Amino acid sequence: MIYADNAASTKLDTDAFEAMKPYLLEEYGNPSQPYSFSRSAKAALKQARETVASCINAKPCEIYFTSGGTESDNWAIKSPAFSDTNFRTTIISQIEHPAVINACSTIERLSHPIAYLDSTQDGVITPVELERVINNRTTRLVSVMLVNNEIGTVQPVKELCSIAHAHGALFHTDAVPALGHIPVDVHELGIDMLSASAHKFNGPKGIGFLYMRKGAKILPYADGGGQEFGLRSGTENVASIVGMAVALKKNCEVIETNAVHLRALEQIVTESLDVAKIDYLRNGNKNRVPGSVSLSFRDISGEELLHHLDSKEICVSAGAACKHGNAQISHVLKAICLPAEYVKGTIRITFGKENTQEEARTIAKELLHIIKG
Amino acid sequence: MIYADNAASTKLDTDAFEAMKPYLLEEYGNPSQPYSFSRSAKAALKQARETVASCINAKPCEIYFTSGGTESDNWAIKSPAFSDTNFRTTIISQIEHPAVINACSTIERLSHPIAYLDSTQDGVITPVELERVINNRTTRLVSVMLVNNEIGTVQPVKELCSIAHAHGALFHTDAVPALGHIPVDVHELGIDMLSASAHKFNGPKGIGFLYMRKGAKILPYADGGGQEFGLRSGTENVASIVGMAVALKKNCEVIETNAVHLRALEQIVTESLDVAKIDYLRNGNKNRVPGSVSLSFRDISGEELLHHLDSKEICVSAGAACKHGNAQISHVLKAICLPAEYVKGTIRITFGKENTQEEARTIAKELLHIIKG
Repeated sequence: MIYADNAASTKLDTDAFEAMKPYLLEEYGNPSQPYSFSRSAKAALKQARETVASCINAKPCEIYFTSGGTESDNWAIKSPAFSDTNFRTTIISQIEHPAVINACSTIERLSHPIAYLDSTQDGVITPVELERVINNRTTRLVSVMLVNNEIGTVQPVKELCSIAHAHGALFHTDAVPALGHIPVDVHELGIDMLSASAHKFNGPKGIGFLYMRKGAKILPYADGGGQEFGLRSGTENVASIVGMAVALKKNCEVIETNAVHLRALEQIVTESLDVAKIDYLRNGNKNRVPGSVSLSFRDISGEELLHHLDSKEICVSAGAACKHGNAQISHVLKAICLPAEYVKGTIRITFGKENTQEEARTIAKELLHIIKG
Repeated sequence: MIYADNAASTKLDTDAFEAMKPYLLEEYGNPSQPYSFSRSAKAALKQARETVASCINAKPCEIYFTSGGTESDNWAIKSPAFSDTNFRTTIISQIEHPAVINACSTIERLSHPIAYLDSTQDGVITPVELERVINNRTTRLVSVMLVNNEIGTVQPVKELCSIAHAHGALFHTDAVPALGHIPVDVHELGIDMLSASAHKFNGPKGIGFLYMRKGAKILPYADGGGQEFGLRSGTENVASIVGMAVALKKNCEVIETNAVHLRALEQIVTESLDVAKIDYLRNGNKNRVPGSVSLSFRDISGEELLHHLDSKEICVSAGAACKHGNAQISHVLKAICLPAEYVKGTIRITFGKENTQEEARTIAKELLHIIKG
C-alpha cells in the first residue's frame, strides 16, 4: 500500500503511541482530582502544554486543548461573534476549510454579517484583497488559513493580520494543514488565534488545540467543570494530549529535512508528467506546503484516476469532492477559477515523511499508465 | 493503591484498549475517504455505532459521537435554545452537573430564560416539582440527570419526561454517571436526548456521545465536513469510538452482577461505621447507582479525611469541592439542605467493578482510624 493522502490523515508516530500508553492504561486518574495518584496525569498535561506552546513560540497558558481542528475553528469563529453585541462583520476567505465556512453560515443565520475574500488564480489571499474588503465596514474578526488544505498554498498571514489589527479586528488562522509542516511562530505572525489538529501531524485523531493570545478575551466554548483555564471544560484527554505533543515536537524538529525530502517526491511526480508531455495544471503558486501536489489533468476524470490508483493500493484524494453520486466541484477549485476542461480531472497527492522516492515513482508510473491508456 | 473514585474516572478496560490499538497504529485512514484503505475504519465506526445504540435500545442513526459528556451536555442545552426564536424557558434541576448548569448560564446571558427545579432532601427531583415549575410558562427543554454524580440518586426521568412532553417541551438527560452502571433504555424512558462519557464506564477519556431521538431536529453543534450525519463535524476519533463501544458493551452485559458486587462493597463501609457508632449521614435516597457512597460525618473535616486516605494511597473524592484554598460547599450538598454540622465532613466513595471486599474493608478501617483518632 502507498499512502499519499497525508492531508486527510497521517499515521500515528510510534513514539507518540508509546508516550500515550501509560496514560491509557495505568495513569487513569482524573487530572482535576487532588490526590497523589492524579499527579502524574496532571504533570503530563502541563508538560504537553509547554511542549506544544514551545513549538509555536506561544506561552503555555495560551494553549487550549480541544477535540480537533473543527472544534478549534468553530470556537474561533463563533465565540467572537456571539460576544459581539454590535454585530460587526466576520471576514473569511473563499478557500477556507468547511469548518470555518460552515461555522460562518451558522453565525450568519443568527444575524452576524459575513464577508468573503477572493482568491487569486494561484490560490493566494492577498493583502490588497483584504484592504478592499475590510474598508468601509466594521470588522470583528478576519480568518484566513495559513495553508490551504486542497492546493497547499501558504497565505501571507502576517501581512493580513496586520491589516486586520489596523482596523481593530481580531485575526484567526486555521493552521491545521500547516502545523508540523512549515515553521509557525505565533509571535512573529502576530495572530490572535490559531487552530490545529493532531492527526494532521502524526498525532492521534480526536485531539487538537486552539492557540489564543493572552488578552484576546474570547468566550468559553464548552461550559462545565472549568478545565483549560475555564474556557474549554471537559475531563482532559490526557493520553491523546501527550501523544499530540510528542508528535508535534518530533515533526517540528525535522521540519527542514522533511521539506527537502518532500520537495524531491513532488518533483519526481511532476517531472514524470512533464517528460511524458501530459497536459495538466499544477494548482497553487510556488509557495506551497511541502509534499502537497494538486494536479488537474485536461479532459480526464479524476474519479477514474482515483479508482485506478485505489486498485493499485495507492491512496490519494479527489480534488473535487463527490457527494451522493453527483460530482461536485470543490469550493477551492471554483475560487481559483480553474478552467472547465481541467477541473474534473483534479487529484491531490499529499506526501508524508514516511513516503519514499520509490513510492513517488510508482504513483507517477500509474498516473501515466491510465492517462496515456 | 486503592482506587475508589470511579465517578471521577475509571480504568480503561484492557479489551477496549486492545480493540483501539489497530485503529491507533495501522488503520489510520480518514474514514471519510473513499479508497479501500479507509474501509476498515469506516466499518469499525459503523459497528461501534450499532453496539452503542444497542446498549441503550436506540437506532444507530440516533448516536452522535462527541468528545465527551461536557460537549454532549453543551450541545443538548445550547442548540435547542439557539434555534428557539420564541425564547422559551429551559428548565434544569439544582443538582445538575456544572456542564449543564454553566451551559445554561451562557444561554441565559443571551436572553434565554432558565428555571430551576428544587431537590428533595434525599436528592430527588420529583414529578410534583416539575409540574409546579413547568406550569404557567412556555418551555423549550427540560434537562434532569439520570443519576446524580455526587450522591448517586437515580431520578424519575421517565415520569419527568412525560410531563415535559405533555407541555410541548423536549427532554434531555445527562446519563454520564448512569450509563454502564444501571440499565438505560431510551425508548422506555421516552427521552429526546441523552449525554454519555466513555471514561465513566471504563472507556477512554475524550470520547462520548449524544443520543438524539430521530425527529428531534436539533441544530448541529460543530459545523464543518459534515461527519456524524451532518450534525457534529470533525474527523472521527475512530480508535476511541471503538474503545468506548467495547467498554460499554462489556459493562452492560454484567450490569446486574456488578450491581450485586458493588452493593456488598457499599455495605461493608456503612456497616463498619454503624457498628462503630459513628455519627454520619449517608446522602441520597435508597435508589442509588451501585457503588456510590456519599457520606457526611458530623463535625469532621472532609479535607482531612481525604488527606489521610491519600497518605494511605486511597483515592476517594471530596463532597465539598475546594477552590483556591476556600472550602466551598458543592451546589448539590446545598440543594439537599445538608445540616451545617455535617456538610464539611462529606466524602464520596465510588466503587468500581475492580474493587474488592478487602479494599472496602481497608477504606472503612482507615476512615474509623482517623474519625475515632
